[in-house]
Amino acid sequence: MTDPALLTARLIRCASVTPEAGPALDLLQEVLEPAGFDCRRVDRNGVPNLYARWGAKGARSFGFNGHVDVVPPGDPASWTHPPFSGALADGMIWGRGATDMKSGVAAFVAAAVDFVTETPPDGAVILTVTGDEEGPSRDGTRAILDWMAQAGERMDVCIVGEPSNPEVMGEMIKIGRRGSLTAQITATGRQGHAAYPHRALNPLHALVRLLGDLTARPLDEGMAHFDPSGLQVTTIDCGNPASNVIPERATATVNIRFNDAHTGDSLTAMLRERAAAVEAETGVRIALAVTVSGESFVTEPGPFVDLVAGVVTEHTGRVPVLSTSGGTSDARFVKDHCPVVEFGLVGAYMHQVDERVPALQVHQLKAIYQSILQRYFA
Amino acid sequence: MTDPALLTARLIRCASVTPEAGPALDLLQEVLEPAGFDCRRVDRNGVPNLYARWGAKGARSFGFNGHVDVVPPGDPASWTHPPFSGALADGMIWGRGATDMKSGVAAFVAAAVDFVTETPPDGAVILTVTGDEEGPSRDGTRAILDWMAQAGERMDVCIVGEPSNPEVMGEMIKIGRRGSLTAQITATGRQGHAAYPHRALNPLHALVRLLGDLTARPLDEGMAHFDPSGLQVTTIDCGNPASNVIPERATATVNIRFNDAHTGDSLTAMLRERAAAVEAETGVRIALAVTVSGESFVTEPGPFVDLVAGVVTEHTGRVPVLSTSGGTSDARFVKDHCPVVEFGLVGAYMHQVDERVPALQVHQLKAIYQSILQRYFA
Ligand SMILES: [Zn+2]
Ligand SMILES: [Zn+2]
Repeated sequence: MTDPALLTARLIRCASVTPEAGPALDLLQEVLEPAGFDCRRVDRNGVPNLYARWGAKGARSFGFNGHVDVVPPGDPASWTHPPFSGALADGMIWGRGATDMKSGVAAFVAAAVDFVTETPPDGAVILTVTGDEEGPSRDGTRAILDWMAQAGERMDVCIVGEPSNPEVMGEMIKIGRRGSLTAQITATGRQGHAAYPHRALNPLHALVRLLGDLTARPLDEGMAHFDPSGLQVTTIDCGNPASNVIPERATATVNIRFNDAHTGDSLTAMLRERAAAVEAETGVRIALAVTVSGESFVTEPGPFVDLVAGVVTEHTGRVPVLSTSGGTSDARFVKDHCPVVEFGLVGAYMHQVDERVPALQVHQLKAIYQSILQRYFA
Repeated sequence: MTDPALLTARLIRCASVTPEAGPALDLLQEVLEPAGFDCRRVDRNGVPNLYARWGAKGARSFGFNGHVDVVPPGDPASWTHPPFSGALADGMIWGRGATDMKSGVAAFVAAAVDFVTETPPDGAVILTVTGDEEGPSRDGTRAILDWMAQAGERMDVCIVGEPSNPEVMGEMIKIGRRGSLTAQITATGRQGHAAYPHRALNPLHALVRLLGDLTARPLDEGMAHFDPSGLQVTTIDCGNPASNVIPERATATVNIRFNDAHTGDSLTAMLRERAAAVEAETGVRIALAVTVSGESFVTEPGPFVDLVAGVVTEHTGRVPVLSTSGGTSDARFVKDHCPVVEFGLVGAYMHQVDERVPALQVHQLKAIYQSILQRYFA
């Protein structure tokens, strides 16, 4: 029996601030190879990544995905236990990555090792673990999937082991994500004296009109598997210290989390159209720089989702909500490869000081993952 | 005959950057005392001011008001002629204060001296000249008027000699001013992740709503002697660099130039009411810090305004517009003492590099002032 709590603590002791995850991946390899996993580092541009397969290439396969890089711990003096100590105290495992997501990786590694050892399946189990999820995410899971496509390696389904439960184990499985778009808006008018506004052109008035228009109504009422899309103005800046001067220029940033009623392209077109209308009304020039960091996606409920949900209910007594809420994860890359869902721990303490996880919760997660594997290959 | 162009040049050579106007006032005193003006320095808190009366105290009196302090010249190397040279070249008098407003002071001093010398009136001519109009304006014209009230001195009417003509001599007399109010707005919500807006409270959305409301409609359509009031958002600032974070706080500044349909108090109440409405709708706290730097005022057209306008037409061939446009001047203080209008030069080059004035224009202004005195005491 592989102890996922102990493995979590050992992973925490590898201070793998993104993307320095080499030693943590070495540790996983030490655990996986004796169990018969074929391990291969798929590093790209200095980012370490691990691909591990048990079973024959091309066989029916079940995959897991996760990351062992972590965000920086901040001031170590603020922590009850040092952030890379992996201390075991009060039934908790303490340290950076305890919930996000060395425990999730430890749970699926332990589950996979015990599963193939105790009940060797007729198929393959594939683990993909990256050192670049908290960073730019360019050479992490994407690099593994790119390599898999070239090498003819393939997962038929995949669980991303990120924390998925807001408060208690078993309450939520994530079956997709909203997309995310950021627009930098620059409004340029004509500077002038506040007492002579007809000689000037106030870019702030145009910006207020555009942003008021964008925030006045919801983008939609929600879709089958999605909450309504949301638009947030995250900053407006002008920096004009003189209250008797109309400024020349002002900027704003808008972030949109969108469901499958939209695409990055349709929202970009909508933003350009509304900006053009305000330009026409006001004469203020409005420039937009739009970045789409992910389109929305969903794994439609069906046999795979039902299997995961059923096992979760058996272990926790809860019927998980099938959600598409929250921020981005590497599931946005995996979804182009195969059906993917996210199920993991409770997401408390993520990225915070004194990040920690109950050891029992890690054991429970390992048991759930192992049952999922058994059911899948039954 | 007193030469106002020469006096302008001599005043420019007193480098009286606000409030260092002592030597410039000494020069005026040297010109006024031989003509029989009773001169008295009314300095307050280090600011030099001059009060000069020809004629008996308590007699029917005509007043002039102006300032001899100037704004700093910037880099002297940028000037064609050194900024305190008072150079006479190309028919122009060059230097800081050439238009704003040593020429205006020189014109009314020369007009007053020649008037009382050539045609001694049955009444009094009173000149009030300050060294603090370009600065905080706390101990300048206000100090002179305070002293006059205590000493029982009084102007029956007054011309402020600030530049009043936008482009050509005779096109505009200013008979009042809009008021000015500045509101600093601070919106405080609750910080959070852009993907979970229901856990946060976006202060920018409340600010955009409030500012959109304030800028959507004009405050009024204009009044008998006034343009419509104007509201300008002069800055919005938040400084949030993270496009996935909803900020806690944002600020904005609003400047209102208002006519006599409003008062500082009525506008403050309007702002508080609209802010409270947005607070109630959004839950975002909105704090207002309001500063009223001047109420609106107007000298209703009547005999005094007609007299000034008539003389201007005789000398220039133009029927002056009676305007209340533009930024503040010391007329806002004088209006509490007696009926006041502003008439002076063309306001080109004010506060700019290579500030200069055509010598002929200064002679013309002196002639207009002298005719006004003659007509008033006729
Ligand atoms: Zn994570
Ligand atoms: Zn001035």
